[in-house]
Amino acid sequence: MTSLQAFLKKNTKLIDATLRRVLPGVTIKPKILHQAMRYSLFAGGKRLRPLLCLAAAEACTQKDSRSSLDQTLLLAAALECLHTYSLIHDDLPAMDNDDLRRGKPTCHKVFNEGIAILAGDALLTTSFGLISQLKPPRRYPHSLFLKEMAHAAGSLQLIGGQVADLEAEGKKVSIADVHFIHEKKTAALITLSLRLGAMSVNASSRDLEALTKFGKALGLAFQIVDDILDVTQSSAQLGKSCGKDLVAHKATYPAAIGLAASQKKAEQLTLQAEQALKPLGERAGVLRLLAQELLTRKN
Amino acid sequence: MTSLQAFLKKNTKLIDATLRRVLPGVTIKPKILHQAMRYSLFAGGKRLRPLLCLAAAEACTQKDSRSSLDQTLLLAAALECLHTYSLIHDDLPAMDNDDLRRGKPTCHKVFNEGIAILAGDALLTTSFGLISQLKPPRRYPHSLFLKEMAHAAGSLQLIGGQVADLEAEGKKVSIADVHFIHEKKTAALITLSLRLGAMSVNASSRDLEALTKFGKALGLAFQIVDDILDVTQSSAQLGKSCGKDLVAHKATYPAAIGLAASQKKAEQLTLQAEQALKPLGERAGVLRLLAQELLTRKN
Repeated sequence: MTSLQAFLKKNTKLIDATLRRVLPGVTIKPKILHQAMRYSLFAGGKRLRPLLCLAAAEACTQKDSRSSLDQTLLLAAALECLHTYSLIHDDLPAMDNDDLRRGKPTCHKVFNEGIAILAGDALLTTSFGLISQLKPPRRYPHSLFLKEMAHAAGSLQLIGGQVADLEAEGKKVSIADVHFIHEKKTAALITLSLRLGAMSVNASSRDLEALTKFGKALGLAFQIVDDILDVTQSSAQLGKSCGKDLVAHKATYPAAIGLAASQKKAEQLTLQAEQALKPLGERAGVLRLLAQELLTRKN
Repeated sequence: MTSLQAFLKKNTKLIDATLRRVLPGVTIKPKILHQAMRYSLFAGGKRLRPLLCLAAAEACTQKDSRSSLDQTLLLAAALECLHTYSLIHDDLPAMDNDDLRRGKPTCHKVFNEGIAILAGDALLTTSFGLISQLKPPRRYPHSLFLKEMAHAAGSLQLIGGQVADLEAEGKKVSIADVHFIHEKKTAALITLSLRLGAMSVNASSRDLEALTKFGKALGLAFQIVDDILDVTQSSAQLGKSCGKDLVAHKATYPAAIGLAASQKKAEQLTLQAEQALKPLGERAGVLRLLAQELLTRKN
């Protein structure tokens, strides 16, 4: 097992255990709501955002620090709740109208649209609730964690990106438009994941700055690879409906600049991301491996 | 002008000014999202929850305190964003499917379903973002404001109530079921409004406890009156589609125990609410007047 595989295996287990612990059980009233929340949370996601959060914390931990993994795990769980809410809402008939997600029927297909909207709302609310449980480190008070999350999840970033994505459908879009959408819709939450992880272990501002640069480049590279896979892979390989971007005339890199140039752009951005990690030295080993893994993934 | 009218007039202006100040402008990208958020926020709501927040702060302010109205107004704005999000989502076709709200077409009618879902999401996120801007008083740290809001807005309260409401539609429901729904869906946010207002001025635990009891009774009374008005008033008077509860076989007090018994229950609860204010003495004058006003309102 490579050191990346060992990191992913160990931490995916911890993330899942934390999510199971912090979410209300499926026997708590209203049962259908808590079932829907857990259905989407445990439908086989890659846990990329929580893993980035944990890897960032590892990269910023000082040898003599007494930082607690539990605190980072709380944030990791909050990030996965936030991400899952955005997927549930994006998949709705009024938006991307997707039947398949992570290889399984989407939340509104298994339950119904009303429950899916409310399960998304509840997961979003849970993300913020988890921040209140945090024991913040010296440099970063509660209000800062909250502010960063609300900004990245808000109308100027995550939600703004989804609106711009919907608006761009069927239109001829420029590369600048695609960049705007990907930056807001994907890179913002990936950067947030790294920043919150770093902040949870009281990272220096130099380390935090390096991870922010890393996140912006990695987030963009990640979404470009996603766009490429939508064109080149089958639904079975992806675990979600593929080829839909083309059909819906979505704003994607391949649509704007073609497949070959998109692949080259993803490689450049990954290199740029890796260079941003320089100030972190060897501590950022897992983050470097993760960036390579995301570039060469097949689903 | 009565003292209640003066209070409402002065503070409604301040609340609206705060909302205008803290929400992104309609020229900020994506424009349609910020237009939809402001459309629903400024569609003529009564501002009940922010007004209760301000009245609670007034009732708990000590003569020698240097508490700042600005802090309470931030929370008042957060509460109105939270309430408006819940209305936008409740009105969606997948839920109550309402065309009219506050006398105007609902958000999804003016924009579209996708934008309405996202405008709701953005307003919910804004509520939490506003908490991060707070300068908290001595007794109550940021994390406590956040915890209270996330709990009241979450799957065990506000959202849980909406799910139970949807589930009860068309079924024969007991008075206990109606009580569960009203408590979660309405009373939780009204109680939260009072508590956050009190906490913003560093209220004593005795005062906070009194306001909590007041809120639970008032919230229930408020929703029962709402149910009664849905049966007895015209759409024009209400500014929203009326008689719909009956058509949809909604879980309401009049459906469960009849109109006359519902009216009596609302009166009893209002009395109970007023009695809970006893420890606050004369400071709670506006809250007493508000409780009476809500009982006898016609829309």
